[in-house]
Amino acid sequence: MIHPLLEDTITAIATPNGIGAISIIRISGEKAISIAESIFKGKTRVSDASSHTVHYGKIVDEQNDFIDDVLLTIFKAPNSYTGDDVVEISYHGNPLIGQKIIDLLQKKDLRIAEPGEFTKRAFLNNKIDLAQAEAVIDVITSRSDASLRGARNQLDGLLSNSVSILRHSLLDTLSYLELELDFAEEDVEFVEKDELVGKIGSIIKKIDDLLETYTFGRVIRDGVNVAIVGKPNVGKSSLLNYLLKESRSIVSSIPGTTRDIIREEISIDGILLKLFDTAGLRISQNAIEKEGVRRSNEIVKNSDLVLFVNDVEQGFSGDLYSELLKLTTEDRIITVINKIDLGMNVDTWNGIKISAKTGYGVETLINSMKKNALGNANYSEKSAIISSIRHFHCLRSAKNGLSNALHSVNQKYSGEFVAVDLRNAADFLGEIIGEVTSEDVLNNIFSKFCIGK
Amino acid sequence: MIHPLLEDTITAIATPNGIGAISIIRISGEKAISIAESIFKGKTRVSDASSHTVHYGKIVDEQNDFIDDVLLTIFKAPNSYTGDDVVEISYHGNPLIGQKIIDLLQKKDLRIAEPGEFTKRAFLNNKIDLAQAEAVIDVITSRSDASLRGARNQLDGLLSNSVSILRHSLLDTLSYLELELDFAEEDVEFVEKDELVGKIGSIIKKIDDLLETYTFGRVIRDGVNVAIVGKPNVGKSSLLNYLLKESRSIVSSIPGTTRDIIREEISIDGILLKLFDTAGLRISQNAIEKEGVRRSNEIVKNSDLVLFVNDVEQGFSGDLYSELLKLTTEDRIITVINKIDLGMNVDTWNGIKISAKTGYGVETLINSMKKNALGNANYSEKSAIISSIRHFHCLRSAKNGLSNALHSVNQKYSGEFVAVDLRNAADFLGEIIGEVTSEDVLNNIFSKFCIGK
Repeated sequence: MIHPLLEDTITAIATPNGIGAISIIRISGEKAISIAESIFKGKTRVSDASSHTVHYGKIVDEQNDFIDDVLLTIFKAPNSYTGDDVVEISYHGNPLIGQKIIDLLQKKDLRIAEPGEFTKRAFLNNKIDLAQAEAVIDVITSRSDASLRGARNQLDGLLSNSVSILRHSLLDTLSYLELELDFAEEDVEFVEKDELVGKIGSIIKKIDDLLETYTFGRVIRDGVNVAIVGKPNVGKSSLLNYLLKESRSIVSSIPGTTRDIIREEISIDGILLKLFDTAGLRISQNAIEKEGVRRSNEIVKNSDLVLFVNDVEQGFSGDLYSELLKLTTEDRIITVINKIDLGMNVDTWNGIKISAKTGYGVETLINSMKKNALGNANYSEKSAIISSIRHFHCLRSAKNGLSNALHSVNQKYSGEFVAVDLRNAADFLGEIIGEVTSEDVLNNIFSKFCIGK
Repeated sequence: MIHPLLEDTITAIATPNGIGAISIIRISGEKAISIAESIFKGKTRVSDASSHTVHYGKIVDEQNDFIDDVLLTIFKAPNSYTGDDVVEISYHGNPLIGQKIIDLLQKKDLRIAEPGEFTKRAFLNNKIDLAQAEAVIDVITSRSDASLRGARNQLDGLLSNSVSILRHSLLDTLSYLELELDFAEEDVEFVEKDELVGKIGSIIKKIDDLLETYTFGRVIRDGVNVAIVGKPNVGKSSLLNYLLKESRSIVSSIPGTTRDIIREEISIDGILLKLFDTAGLRISQNAIEKEGVRRSNEIVKNSDLVLFVNDVEQGFSGDLYSELLKLTTEDRIITVINKIDLGMNVDTWNGIKISAKTGYGVETLINSMKKNALGNANYSEKSAIISSIRHFHCLRSAKNGLSNALHSVNQKYSGEFVAVDLRNAADFLGEIIGEVTSEDVLNNIFSKFCIGK
């Protein structure tokens, strides 16, 4: 039986908005081919075309008026992105033409796809699992190399495989346990208690390993928020400019959206650093500055890292440091001593000594930022890592289930208790890859997608 | 021999900028297939693939690192957009991925295409002529139905055919004349004088017909600039709002870019009307208002149409009308009498009586605007029409050549004079379709294109 969500034929513009050489409309569903045939005039009949072939022709409306000349690409189920029959119409990249073709299609028996609905179909048609589907939107929106690689690996199934192996190992154990319960009267023991404890413990260990990758995963996916803080004239802007210059690839330069906060993004070794140059946390607040100070404080609170910039002339700002400690924790603060080029003796000062003028020490600073952001993690994007809060919660819930099971075993509770907890844990693992899922979870995931994907 | 401009293999991103489900990179040229093969890993070898087939696989860099999974579409010369071998790479619509693939390609033996270079190749490979090539960018940038239809018809060769027929008829005549010149000593007459006069005259007539379509062509291509002018409180904004509401499709709503000029675009029967609501031409100018007045005047000067709005309460503004006549001509002014709903007797007033409140008379006004903008033209977008200033100039120059030829015939000048003028005229016609052309003209045309087309 066809899944109810797969009954309709859907369509959407799949290329970015705007004017360009080419734009593409995608149609997916049972009627994709017959609908395409009804608006297309070319040498080949669309329904006679083989999968993975391209056909030149014209899109014509009901009055037989010609809208555009196009290339039609045919993908036959199940060998398409969605697993349905898919037709792609490649037309001259004018939004007006796109709208005309969509208008024409809407008079046929199909509807406009919701955001992410093509990928949702790929999931429902078992082309990809849920964790892979979630990676699709990350692949599209990644803004740094590391983030892209992480998303690509998840799309390729690195995480899915790890989770799937854990889940199957858990289900195996569970099935022996359940077998034992079936034969409870006969007092047969299929699973030794020690073996059970060992198995559950080893799965917990592996879940812990995955949970630990979350900080790293989040950093490579979303980048690191870095606040640059310091008193006036310590060289915050010079440092920011030097970092921008050093970074081999400036991701974007967003002009200050507020009066006193400058935001820039750089990518260092593929990791996105979002740098916020604040006007500085002022100790004396007058009414006018209050709003600016409030915003600076907010930035520090939300930062993964704080570059606390001092200079050799003004000396270390102990008062500002105390203020910072009210907003963030010590381990997130990197103390920087700037203007080392002035030649003063600062050997006894704590902090990374730099010159934003000559570049001295900036490399050390960058390494320190990287180390601080990534922790001591020894992961690479080539291991299975998690970067989604949903996956984090599922894994933590699975771990809870397993801990409960372990407790029940140790307390010699009835095997039924153990089985329920293990089943729970397996379900949580299944939620990650979509083996177990609800419509709500799906809607929540795919609503974050862009139209046409 | 291969045209020197066709020797390179070129590449560019062909879809609009930004994030989307799909983006496409196009490669065109002799090495398109071998270069694509060198970065692609799939089931099929790219060089073994048939034309018009699609292949799933991965783009890999020199380190064998995997950049994205893509669909590769192969078009073999001459059956491609450009007439070269063409490969299209359809990847996840992330600009970062696009850049990575382009970076990878740039290490190969190809270069980034200039704007319009794919279409230029289509022209150089005789896939389309020059007038058709020019229509491509109009098809992509058209913002109204009429404009789009006009551009589509030009792309389909409607104008090219007309010009080509004229040119061949001219070249026929010319060849007889030249034959006569070859046999000059023998005093053979291949062309009767009367016949020659008749032929040239008939070609001039057809060129005139085309020249006359220019106003219409320009209107449907670029739309009509309409200035809404009137004293304060006559209801200019109400009229603008009513027009916006009436128009079935609002093309765009551009918020006032200047302090006192509002610009809106509406499409009426497929024709784009660009409406400018001015603060009004002020008769008394103080220093502060001077700049605003200057800008209003500029708008009136550059408008194809002026809606001169009066109301029944304040009466007809004779002084403003006199001012308008200094800026534009009488035939461009449509006088509007607003607030007819107030019930005053204005039977004797000249102008279109409307109520921007109830909508009374607005239909009449719209028809009057259409008639005024299009003139008495009896063309449709299905006739050959010209909309490009370049074509207008070429046709006018061709006509000049023909008039000179006619003069020479009538003055019984030597046949050589006639032949030179006819040759000139034929060349100007040839310039429209690119039979005769210079690198400068080509560069000028294609530099207006977008990248990737």
